[in-house]
Amino acid sequence: MEQLNIVVIGGVAAGASFAARARRLNEAARITVIERGPDVSFANCGLPYHIGGEIADRGALAVQSAASLKALLNLEVRVGTEAVAIDRAGKRVELRDLASGRHEWLPYDKLMLAPGASPLRPPLPGIDDPRIFTLRNLQDMDRIVAATSAGKRAVVIGAGFIGLEMAEQLRHKGLAVELVELQPQVLPPLDAPMAALIDSELRRHGIGLHLGEGIARFEPAAGSLRCHLASGRALDADIVILAIGVRPDSELARAAGLDLGPRGHIVVDGFQRSSDPDIYAAGDAVETADRVGGGRTAVPMGGPANRQGRVAADHIFLADKARPYPGSLGTGILRVFETVAGLTGWSEKRLVAAGRPYQTVTVNDSHHAGYYPGARPMTLKILWEPDSGRLLGAQVSGFEGIDKRLDVLATAITAGMTVEDLCHLELAYAPPFGAAKDIVNLAGFAACNRRDGLVSHTTDLPDDPRVQVVDVRGAALAEAYPVPVPSVNIPFPTLRANLDRLDRDRPVVTVCAFGKMSYFAARVLAQHGFAVQSFSGGLKANVDPRTPGKLPSP
Amino acid sequence: MEQLNIVVIGGVAAGASFAARARRLNEAARITVIERGPDVSFANCGLPYHIGGEIADRGALAVQSAASLKALLNLEVRVGTEAVAIDRAGKRVELRDLASGRHEWLPYDKLMLAPGASPLRPPLPGIDDPRIFTLRNLQDMDRIVAATSAGKRAVVIGAGFIGLEMAEQLRHKGLAVELVELQPQVLPPLDAPMAALIDSELRRHGIGLHLGEGIARFEPAAGSLRCHLASGRALDADIVILAIGVRPDSELARAAGLDLGPRGHIVVDGFQRSSDPDIYAAGDAVETADRVGGGRTAVPMGGPANRQGRVAADHIFLADKARPYPGSLGTGILRVFETVAGLTGWSEKRLVAAGRPYQTVTVNDSHHAGYYPGARPMTLKILWEPDSGRLLGAQVSGFEGIDKRLDVLATAITAGMTVEDLCHLELAYAPPFGAAKDIVNLAGFAACNRRDGLVSHTTDLPDDPRVQVVDVRGAALAEAYPVPVPSVNIPFPTLRANLDRLDRDRPVVTVCAFGKMSYFAARVLAQHGFAVQSFSGGLKANVDPRTPGKLPSP
Repeated sequence: MEQLNIVVIGGVAAGASFAARARRLNEAARITVIERGPDVSFANCGLPYHIGGEIADRGALAVQSAASLKALLNLEVRVGTEAVAIDRAGKRVELRDLASGRHEWLPYDKLMLAPGASPLRPPLPGIDDPRIFTLRNLQDMDRIVAATSAGKRAVVIGAGFIGLEMAEQLRHKGLAVELVELQPQVLPPLDAPMAALIDSELRRHGIGLHLGEGIARFEPAAGSLRCHLASGRALDADIVILAIGVRPDSELARAAGLDLGPRGHIVVDGFQRSSDPDIYAAGDAVETADRVGGGRTAVPMGGPANRQGRVAADHIFLADKARPYPGSLGTGILRVFETVAGLTGWSEKRLVAAGRPYQTVTVNDSHHAGYYPGARPMTLKILWEPDSGRLLGAQVSGFEGIDKRLDVLATAITAGMTVEDLCHLELAYAPPFGAAKDIVNLAGFAACNRRDGLVSHTTDLPDDPRVQVVDVRGAALAEAYPVPVPSVNIPFPTLRANLDRLDRDRPVVTVCAFGKMSYFAARVLAQHGFAVQSFSGGLKANVDPRTPGKLPSP
Repeated sequence: MEQLNIVVIGGVAAGASFAARARRLNEAARITVIERGPDVSFANCGLPYHIGGEIADRGALAVQSAASLKALLNLEVRVGTEAVAIDRAGKRVELRDLASGRHEWLPYDKLMLAPGASPLRPPLPGIDDPRIFTLRNLQDMDRIVAATSAGKRAVVIGAGFIGLEMAEQLRHKGLAVELVELQPQVLPPLDAPMAALIDSELRRHGIGLHLGEGIARFEPAAGSLRCHLASGRALDADIVILAIGVRPDSELARAAGLDLGPRGHIVVDGFQRSSDPDIYAAGDAVETADRVGGGRTAVPMGGPANRQGRVAADHIFLADKARPYPGSLGTGILRVFETVAGLTGWSEKRLVAAGRPYQTVTVNDSHHAGYYPGARPMTLKILWEPDSGRLLGAQVSGFEGIDKRLDVLATAITAGMTVEDLCHLELAYAPPFGAAKDIVNLAGFAACNRRDGLVSHTTDLPDDPRVQVVDVRGAALAEAYPVPVPSVNIPFPTLRANLDRLDRDRPVVTVCAFGKMSYFAARVLAQHGFAVQSFSGGLKANVDPRTPGKLPSP
């Protein structure tokens, strides 16, 4: 058996996955894993949950150790060791033992770079205050655990996935939490309306939101760290969590002259080969194909990292049986207290920014049959290419079953499915699990109705005296949560009998709670000669999404 | 606007869906819904759950009424009315009012047949005993509610979806329950090993299982109804539920000379047209395209029924914009107490019976990241076409997240995806929801390993002195749950150091708890020159699937 010399820089998701797969494929290879930190193969996605106490056992996060990787996979794992240079011509890596400072050169036949990405730390005044933390590894986690306790004041900067998980967990631990986000919404990867439920859930749990706010500087104050916002406001904190994003740890690759992308990611081909064919790279430090848009993207998530590592090992050992990494979608999900939201593929804001044509619908329904106890509302937005109908992205928010719909839609996008294909997905239905027409089917129906010209949607409520806004909700609901522009209330069941209350020469916008009755009404009115649009997605901002066990009847 | 005269026979799933969509598409049509029973558009999938009290409010099951359908959709609904004949030449339907016995003829331009299917009632001696019930509608449900109370003895005949839901709900209500099934397993649509968890859950809840048992006759005995089984055993019951399947209510169609399939289903084209182009049919009474196998199938489920009704309405009113019903997969799911199991596409037994070539793997994992609290085991079996790798079917069993994996796989099968495509599905991952490598990815990996010749599987444990069965579990587990054939225990981490304990000239089968370590061991041994097979899916029958919070370490 040929004995290849494999060196792996970075022993967490991509590196550990690569090394494990390499060993399964080849017993003879000498595989050495170099890890700067003291731990390999730990569960980095679980770090926030230990801080909040949800994962009580710290040991659960240390998935493997150097000893277990030796026993299970015959890997040589060297923790506390930094790779400081790559000699590509000599095919060797220079290592530095962090404890002793000793240097040595390690030869390789194939090198895997899986260095990951570092939390951003902008060079603001006061940024080096020891009360400002980032979260990347178990040591960061331990430091934050030690620095937090009930009653303390935390400021979390950044309302993306990690920032929101941290805000939730710190609140869970009893801290007062203020959340600062530069964008005007929480969870910026999503379109703002799809993040509204998460927003209200954070506020409901007493988390202060400071949206559209930058951080200017940090300043020690009496017993506090004062966080000065760009607007001039200030927040006093006992601890600050910085979670404004990551950047690829690609300095070693850059110094070795490997090609890097525009944001510093290591450029790789479909088999994870860098511009040097004996050097592979995978995980948060690389850019990859965008499975939706066709260009390049970087998705610093655990799933892609693990699977990219595997692809690289297959390429080394399986030769022509190896299959390329097909690119990333950018699927992400977040739970905050009782609410959940996520996305897959491209958002509307991303399509707009790229100037790509799209159409979209938003539908609301229960996550399982309304007549079965516990049904709670959920919202699904899909985006597609106007000509082909091909799906480009989806976002879901609600309470339960969010992950399921995201996964179905991620699969559909991967398969190149169209909105027409969603109509007849035959999903698993029994009352505890779904509905005879699942919300994914409903989204397909709504998209086809739009494509077939059966209904015209608007996402604006016109405050225009020429437009007749017709609120077709029941009278009680209409009175309790009035439409924010002048409107007439004609409950849907009475609409056909009240057509003479409307002026056929003026446009109509129909409005309801969830966008369904307004569509029904628009169909009635269109067939009676009205120029009508349905207000897409409904007024549900005016209805507490927790209240209705089922969607309100008209 | 042209005023079409539309008559709909049957006002539940397919009929109600058809009528609602027809109205949205056309305000002018006269739409009359004929329903034999007193209710329209009720939630038939919810009936068992009201019997057990899980859906406390009976009213929740009556989704619509004749009055609400008039108000919302301007439908003429005639309940308590039976359609007794179709005059195709005269384009009219003969109706009989069940209360008055009065007959009349109703003309139609387009007729929709949505009569549904009736529970089978085999002509056994004693079958007419009033203590023998079937469950189709709210009245059947009410009768069963009145006849059941805690402490009574129920015999449920048939362990398919309805029979198992009824067994659970009757147990929930405090009855003693015996379950009789002709097949040698519960949930016959699934392959037997995938139904084993449901089997053990039923027994754990004290339900007596009589598998491979037919029913011979019923006989009144002192205060009881005695159910005589074909084997000669007898069970005494206060109430019997017959749930051995359904047959299409296609007598009206047959009498009208419409084409019927081999099992009496109405034959329709992709737009749900029967052999008479003015007569449509949808729901449990029709046969449709088999989306996996390419032939014809009948799937008496709510999802297909609802969507077929919609397709027919589109064909009448949308002309060339209408899209055909693409066929059914046969997706089904069942919850029994804490356990869940389901399938989509074809099972192994169905492939075997049809003589179609296939390959299969079974994998086990947790439904979410093992380090996050509450992770419970689940099992996934996939089947694919050997040449193309195209997915043919999937089955899942476990506790949570079963519906999610079924839905992903139903989508993948619909899209014509291969097992290779499963490897890189980018599913939503955060610790509460999944894993960096979801069990669906793992199934793809395992299938590719098999296709690439990296591992050979066996589903039999050989009791053959020539074969060396190597149990690679930890010593404690191996001792507590011994392999049922002669074996040697070499825990996986010690395998490489103990190769000399094995004879290279004799075949090896590796065994572990869940099929993962045995695969690892098979890779090690294969590379050291052994002829080795891994025991697929593991011994988990020997391990209580509730015990491990995470899968046992080696």
